[in-house]
Amino acid sequence: MQKGNKYGLHRVIEPPGTLPQPAWKVDNTPVIYDNEILIDVNVLNITASAFTRIEKEAGKDEEKIKQIILDIISERGKFNDPVTGSGGILIGEVAQIGSALQGKIDLAVGEAIATLVSLSVTPLYVEEITGIDVSKDQVYVKGKAILFESGIYAKLPHDLPEALSVAMLDVAGAPAWMAKIAKAGDIVVVIGTGKAGMLCLHEAKKRAGITGKVIAIDYLKEQCDLVASLGLADIVIQGNATKPLEILEKVSSVTNGRMADVTFNTVDVENTEMATILSTKEHGTIYFFSMSISFTKAALGAESIGKVVNMLVGTGYTEGHADITLQILRENPSLYNYFTKLYQ
Amino acid sequence: MQKGNKYGLHRVIEPPGTLPQPAWKVDNTPVIYDNEILIDVNVLNITASAFTRIEKEAGKDEEKIKQIILDIISERGKFNDPVTGSGGILIGEVAQIGSALQGKIDLAVGEAIATLVSLSVTPLYVEEITGIDVSKDQVYVKGKAILFESGIYAKLPHDLPEALSVAMLDVAGAPAWMAKIAKAGDIVVVIGTGKAGMLCLHEAKKRAGITGKVIAIDYLKEQCDLVASLGLADIVIQGNATKPLEILEKVSSVTNGRMADVTFNTVDVENTEMATILSTKEHGTIYFFSMSISFTKAALGAESIGKVVNMLVGTGYTEGHADITLQILRENPSLYNYFTKLYQ
Repeated sequence: MQKGNKYGLHRVIEPPGTLPQPAWKVDNTPVIYDNEILIDVNVLNITASAFTRIEKEAGKDEEKIKQIILDIISERGKFNDPVTGSGGILIGEVAQIGSALQGKIDLAVGEAIATLVSLSVTPLYVEEITGIDVSKDQVYVKGKAILFESGIYAKLPHDLPEALSVAMLDVAGAPAWMAKIAKAGDIVVVIGTGKAGMLCLHEAKKRAGITGKVIAIDYLKEQCDLVASLGLADIVIQGNATKPLEILEKVSSVTNGRMADVTFNTVDVENTEMATILSTKEHGTIYFFSMSISFTKAALGAESIGKVVNMLVGTGYTEGHADITLQILRENPSLYNYFTKLYQ
Repeated sequence: MQKGNKYGLHRVIEPPGTLPQPAWKVDNTPVIYDNEILIDVNVLNITASAFTRIEKEAGKDEEKIKQIILDIISERGKFNDPVTGSGGILIGEVAQIGSALQGKIDLAVGEAIATLVSLSVTPLYVEEITGIDVSKDQVYVKGKAILFESGIYAKLPHDLPEALSVAMLDVAGAPAWMAKIAKAGDIVVVIGTGKAGMLCLHEAKKRAGITGKVIAIDYLKEQCDLVASLGLADIVIQGNATKPLEILEKVSSVTNGRMADVTFNTVDVENTEMATILSTKEHGTIYFFSMSISFTKAALGAESIGKVVNMLVGTGYTEGHADITLQILRENPSLYNYFTKLYQ
């Protein structure tokens, strides 16, 4: 076997000298180097932002969606949506472990895993797309992927359905960062109550606890009703996060002007930076977990109203993020039942 | 006088219901509402990113630069570069104070001030551009500006030249955040050693102190020599921040693989996110002070290599940022002399 670089530099084709993630094109030849893991891929779990973007381009036509996805993979050697820049994760079974890794990692051929680095960094070779489930942003494939030495993965747990685990792991970074940031007694606002938002709400209630207050904000009435019925928040607000002043007023009203200590934005819609900033108190912490966030709008937005807040660029990873996120399903039967129906 | 809104909502023309900063167009009529301050504007100090962008579009032709700036202001009612999204700051004298603010603020008609909210949020009416200094990104004008009730400003100090103060205040957020973040004993890396970078280096040396280590990185040899001759860093590295692996190797080498506790990126160039992330140790803090940063590249970049870092969206403001930044000039005679020559 050829000796590979830890970060997968040996796979970068274009432009040379870059890392695999920013690279336009990587080498997806399904023959491993000595420090790589070869995976038989079953499912691609595409990010909501990329899937929504592609669905729009395809006018919701499933065959066109498949073709767009195949084209991206064939052109770039990885699934890395050129418009949104995002990827997703995959599941499969370990097919082969490079000689330099054998005995060093806790993994055996045949084990089911999910890669926890983005698809945007993972060389992927797809023979065919066998199916697609637009309701889950999932694509079923026959193919191979390469995991680099620096890549992270989670073994899929035996006590949870596979599709459910994968869907959760895709957004595992958000609830895990909530677990790190939210403290006892905090007022926590979660804007956007999709999959990531709901998991964040559970963690927020757990960490802020009985002395804290957890506020969920969503644009859709049915989503607000759902969050309320699942008992995920102390207060549920229906509001439009692209209307900062509407959100400011509503959060101010339910917190008596105290505003949030911690605000998580999980909305995949543009122009929600300002509502997030206005919801947060002076010196509070904001975590942006959305690829629709504009760095410039966030930076200049806070400056434009003289507000001092710690605004974190939300990455999809922190230590133990898979454990924290899968544990939520074991702790919260209502959420478990809801997600099981959705991602069975 | 008409009653105005604290955030200047009454000035937003397009689209309605937004705040002045994200608004495409604001009303720049130079007649104040009861809670506004009218300013006789003398100088616009445009952000490096916007000025460079406009200079390029104009092919360095000064008359064309003027025209582009006038066109932006006339179309948007504010100087808010439509490409980079950034603005800058202005200086002038207080011309009139709204009736609702009189007696409530520490300001008198005739006093020289700099506005410390971005030009991208400030209604601006320019009669003419009387001069331009491309070496300072400064535009001399005859005009009026409006400061909202939520707007922040600094009185210009009597012991420092006006042009110098303004040039410094434009980037005051970066050294002030460095003052908050860098702690005794930290290894601090500053990528980019322009105006903001140099001020950050001074603060880093002061806060990290004798037990810390301050590392400056710049692309240009002459800038590296300058930083070394001014004594701003313990170690100066010449390197290209768009080549993450080159920077990783160099920072690793001078820190014996420990990497930085705190990394400030002040480079106005695209694709420097990864070099910044790779320079920083696990659980370190990154402050991105550049409008060229891509939110997606930073988020996915860290995720792609499984690195856990706190990445802050760098705003141009925190409490006392003007005081902290102007104090640097009093504390550091070499830097004072250098900047005085540059911005006299």
